[in-house]
Amino acid sequence: MIRAAIVGGTGYTGVELLRILVLHPDVDVTVVTSRSDAGQRVDAIYPSLRGLCNVDFTVPELDALAECEVVFFATPNGTAMLLAEQLLARNVKVIDLSADFRFKDDKEWSKWYGMEHACPDLISQAVYGLPEINRVAIKQTNLLACPGCYPTAVQLGFLPLIENKLIDFSHLIADVKSGVSGAGRKAQVSALMSETGESFKAYAVSGHRHLPEITQGLEGVANQSIGLIFVPHLTPMIRGIHATLYGRLNKSSDDINDVQTLFEQRYQNEQFVDVLPQGTHPDTRNVRGSNNCQIAIHQPQGSDTVVVLSVIDNLVKGAAGQAVQNMNLMFELDEKQGLTTVALYP
Amino acid sequence: MIRAAIVGGTGYTGVELLRILVLHPDVDVTVVTSRSDAGQRVDAIYPSLRGLCNVDFTVPELDALAECEVVFFATPNGTAMLLAEQLLARNVKVIDLSADFRFKDDKEWSKWYGMEHACPDLISQAVYGLPEINRVAIKQTNLLACPGCYPTAVQLGFLPLIENKLIDFSHLIADVKSGVSGAGRKAQVSALMSETGESFKAYAVSGHRHLPEITQGLEGVANQSIGLIFVPHLTPMIRGIHATLYGRLNKSSDDINDVQTLFEQRYQNEQFVDVLPQGTHPDTRNVRGSNNCQIAIHQPQGSDTVVVLSVIDNLVKGAAGQAVQNMNLMFELDEKQGLTTVALYP
Amino acid sequence: MIRAAIVGGTGYTGVELLRILVLHPDVDVTVVTSRSDAGQRVDAIYPSLRGLCNVDFTVPELDALAECEVVFFATPNGTAMLLAEQLLARNVKVIDLSADFRFKDDKEWSKWYGMEHACPDLISQAVYGLPEINRVAIKQTNLLACPGCYPTAVQLGFLPLIENKLIDFSHLIADVKSGVSGAGRKAQVSALMSETGESFKAYAVSGHRHLPEITQGLEGVANQSIGLIFVPHLTPMIRGIHATLYGRLNKSSDDINDVQTLFEQRYQNEQFVDVLPQGTHPDTRNVRGSNNCQIAIHQPQGSDTVVVLSVIDNLVKGAAGQAVQNMNLMFELDEKQGLTTVALYP
Amino acid sequence: MIRAAIVGGTGYTGVELLRILVLHPDVDVTVVTSRSDAGQRVDAIYPSLRGLCNVDFTVPELDALAECEVVFFATPNGTAMLLAEQLLARNVKVIDLSADFRFKDDKEWSKWYGMEHACPDLISQAVYGLPEINRVAIKQTNLLACPGCYPTAVQLGFLPLIENKLIDFSHLIADVKSGVSGAGRKAQVSALMSETGESFKAYAVSGHRHLPEITQGLEGVANQSIGLIFVPHLTPMIRGIHATLYGRLNKSSDDINDVQTLFEQRYQNEQFVDVLPQGTHPDTRNVRGSNNCQIAIHQPQGSDTVVVLSVIDNLVKGAAGQAVQNMNLMFELDEKQGLTTVALYP
Repeated sequence: MIRAAIVGGTGYTGVELLRILVLHPDVDVTVVTSRSDAGQRVDAIYPSLRGLCNVDFTVPELDALAECEVVFFATPNGTAMLLAEQLLARNVKVIDLSADFRFKDDKEWSKWYGMEHACPDLISQAVYGLPEINRVAIKQTNLLACPGCYPTAVQLGFLPLIENKLIDFSHLIADVKSGVSGAGRKAQVSALMSETGESFKAYAVSGHRHLPEITQGLEGVANQSIGLIFVPHLTPMIRGIHATLYGRLNKSSDDINDVQTLFEQRYQNEQFVDVLPQGTHPDTRNVRGSNNCQIAIHQPQGSDTVVVLSVIDNLVKGAAGQAVQNMNLMFELDEKQGLTTVALYP
Repeated sequence: MIRAAIVGGTGYTGVELLRILVLHPDVDVTVVTSRSDAGQRVDAIYPSLRGLCNVDFTVPELDALAECEVVFFATPNGTAMLLAEQLLARNVKVIDLSADFRFKDDKEWSKWYGMEHACPDLISQAVYGLPEINRVAIKQTNLLACPGCYPTAVQLGFLPLIENKLIDFSHLIADVKSGVSGAGRKAQVSALMSETGESFKAYAVSGHRHLPEITQGLEGVANQSIGLIFVPHLTPMIRGIHATLYGRLNKSSDDINDVQTLFEQRYQNEQFVDVLPQGTHPDTRNVRGSNNCQIAIHQPQGSDTVVVLSVIDNLVKGAAGQAVQNMNLMFELDEKQGLTTVALYP
Repeated sequence: MIRAAIVGGTGYTGVELLRILVLHPDVDVTVVTSRSDAGQRVDAIYPSLRGLCNVDFTVPELDALAECEVVFFATPNGTAMLLAEQLLARNVKVIDLSADFRFKDDKEWSKWYGMEHACPDLISQAVYGLPEINRVAIKQTNLLACPGCYPTAVQLGFLPLIENKLIDFSHLIADVKSGVSGAGRKAQVSALMSETGESFKAYAVSGHRHLPEITQGLEGVANQSIGLIFVPHLTPMIRGIHATLYGRLNKSSDDINDVQTLFEQRYQNEQFVDVLPQGTHPDTRNVRGSNNCQIAIHQPQGSDTVVVLSVIDNLVKGAAGQAVQNMNLMFELDEKQGLTTVALYP
Repeated sequence: MIRAAIVGGTGYTGVELLRILVLHPDVDVTVVTSRSDAGQRVDAIYPSLRGLCNVDFTVPELDALAECEVVFFATPNGTAMLLAEQLLARNVKVIDLSADFRFKDDKEWSKWYGMEHACPDLISQAVYGLPEINRVAIKQTNLLACPGCYPTAVQLGFLPLIENKLIDFSHLIADVKSGVSGAGRKAQVSALMSETGESFKAYAVSGHRHLPEITQGLEGVANQSIGLIFVPHLTPMIRGIHATLYGRLNKSSDDINDVQTLFEQRYQNEQFVDVLPQGTHPDTRNVRGSNNCQIAIHQPQGSDTVVVLSVIDNLVKGAAGQAVQNMNLMFELDEKQGLTTVALYP
């Protein structure tokens, strides 16, 4: 059994890691840290875990963490970078669900995250954990940077179009809608049910931290600069991301059937990316609680614009599920281990 | 007092008309028809109206309707066109909330609505009731076609950009999100709470009936053809539409401050269109239950793409409220009469 | 025009007061205080009020408040009692929406609210503002204690049964369900949408602050002690309270038809209490945004237990609407002034 | 592998059976019937099952069903009773999730379900599938009647109190709240999101079909008649039942600590009933998607009334999960097989 620790076990990505890992046949979660809840049983705070999780929250301590083979950071940005180096030095694999190691450029990171990076030298070692692009590198790294939720949905939707240079790279549009669990489990007025229920809004149109992350990812594939308009929205539900992606075909003669085939071929061996039949529209509920990404392709009214619909559960494929998928790869397990669940419908 | 009838009083636009009209100081709703509920008190079906509506549902009869000065059709498509001619002949003003008189071309209408138009000769008499464009004509007509909910939010958002030819007309994108009340009050699995709650999806990407309506409206303003991609989505809330609109500025040198000023000037005398300060993001709840449209303008990252956010309540400015606004104009009342309400927050 | 101030204008009861008062024909809201938002326009924080509220938030200052004829306290418990005496001394009427003046016994108050009462001498002057019981006294007071939301729904439901001694006073049960806006507009994890959405729970079963308030009210009517089990629940919606009340008829021979008649007679002159036909079930949406209480009476299976269903909007009849109703009485205005609205359905 | 059929695979209990059974290691679902969707792939209707269910909907045919070892009926009431006899005759085990075999008295059944029972002779063979009461009989039967959702939550909550004769049997109260999926997946206005969202109501107070089912169950345990007031409510969420149960202790001297201990002992060997620590309040989300029932006990203010809070997921422990639990028992499998999942939080 792989001994695993979760640092920051009281946020939604932390408890979602627990939901998955307590049933993972190869993992034993032995350490779950939380400064605020230290000393309490995990299942006292999260009664959904009663009977399946016999651990107390502890304060994070290096020695305790270093006894594990893998440490997940489900912490606010700026925490993982303070501990990663010491853990790696003690041969512990680090899987960071925060943004600390997602950027290749620490100056850019500082600009968007508002702090100095604590270990810029480590950045080059980190692998960006989108298995559909980086599977080989993921298997070989000890420092894994889990992608953000929006970046996962957007990159998987654009990927085949970018790889095949089918669309105008200078004018991509990603209109993306997220459930409110993306805002995290922290006390804030803006995420109250009275504020977010029964209402819909865009936010951060002038610039969201996931914009440079998406751009970096797509540019890595395109091998050239891309121009992306990214508009995130908050939708009155708890889980789920729906990305509606727009690109202009370079050749208006391109046939949507060919694009459909292209997507199907690109993802035919991917366990967690599912290209739907043409003409369909994925609901976010199709993937609620599961690690799947469902994608559908449209070309409305025969125009030169291709519309891609891409849905994930922000807490699973957009966070904890993808982290476990990466862990499976890093430990040479079956990539689906612990992740074969059916979405909760209705 | 203006005697008013509502044909089709058991749908959401019908009951919303009642919500507004029972408090309208110049209107007396004397006839409310419903084939299914005929004989019952209106407030037995809609207890929210108890004490304010002393009318029974009746089956629609021409003579009873013709005793009114205005007849609102809150019916499924294809009903108003069967009665409009006779009512007009008896000097009754007709305000149609369905789509029967929205199109200028009855062939196009038949294509999208799947039936022959019953009175194509009347179409040219009908005025499209978007007061922000057609106020003068509205005041003079007896046959008013109320705009659809999506078309209202989208046209008001694009209008100043089109009128001033600021953007590339060939590549407009409208990514629009609607609450589920837009699906109407009819028995259908797809609108059950278990189907629509806690989930988000796009639908009708290949072509929605509101697409040609929006195109017709914008082309009327542009005096040339326009190319529009329109993607409607269903969001898990009851009321509200949020349109996220994308256009490419013809001159990338155009300053967002100028665009902001342009919007403010365009709508400065409009009672129900409110341009928000730059950098803000309207929530649909800001207009829940009110006849307002709130608009904000963005130019993300200094790109050449302008992003317009436009929100309305689909049942008010997108249907019943706009119908009453049109009625006020047609009867030379204060345009705001009966419509001065505050949105319900939270 | 009555000059009114709202102390604590950024909570939900404060903004709900604004929603009602900006359209009240006899009131001019001239002061709205908020320590956190002082200096900002009210409609910058609450865009639903744009065009209707031309006031800035200020810090609370006695002199500014004393220039008003009435001051509403929409503050956390423990604030109104610090200012009430000085305001009353300057001939300002005080309407307190918090709990400071609801109890007749300051020791009991201290026990439940965890602080010393700052002005126990004032308590005897305060009138408990449930107009259906205390209308005469309300008209004569300058210090009005608005009832809590749960107590309003529960007392109105039990009142005719208690007044007529129809049920066993020693074993009343109130199983009550509230929307989440009752938790207020403050940053707290427990009221996040991710915590409260799609879930239902009871809370404070061992003792909720509204229990002694209800008991005091009912005992005042009964003229004897009563035994009440009060179980509050949180339901995943924003507005609304539904009280399900259980009492055992003293004479099992009592006929439900007589009970129905009794309720109808008791409330026949009440503007805001509406007894529904027998056999019906009020939805909370029937009163969403309105000041009404709707009540239905049942006697299941001919048993000796009467079941009363009582619904209100917790922010209107349960808070701000009732406060305005009381203000109307205190200023000898029509009791319905500013409160004639239709609930928002759907 | 056990070959299983699901008759009525397009309702919520049917698709929930599929969600569980496609991952059950000992079961192979070979037949899924639906008259309306026959000929289509199951995962075309339910995309959440893509990759896990390679079956088409078929029309129900006896021969095809009889090739299975077990047939689940997830049908409307009145269907299972038409096929059960023939299936039993061919040595197929029948697990009925509808109400057809829940009552011991076919006259009573006819009264509540409005039709003649098609096979009253079979009723005595049927075992009521609440394992916590009937485990031994369940293991031996071939005809299993799955309990209703409300009856499961209510009986498990009252059981220890009844078995130990702690409360007054003549005056039990069950105030129960259900999510809307309990209304099923059929086209009906009353279950639209616009009708059920953001609102709360009681229904069927005069008598709900689950009342006699609960009474029969509790009387079987009590060995005497009981008097129960059962008030069901609809709460604006999809899944979950919360029962709030009230009983008067026969000896007011009874200590809540003893009652707590009693519950813990009663359920200590039950895999799916979890007694929470004293003073806690279970959220329905604690069991969303899982087969657990969580129970908490309270004695408010030291009164002689015990309050039991009992939560389940209506589609799992209240339907499909309990059906699989029963199947496991009937086939001598581990009772938890296929049911070890963690509730979806948030």
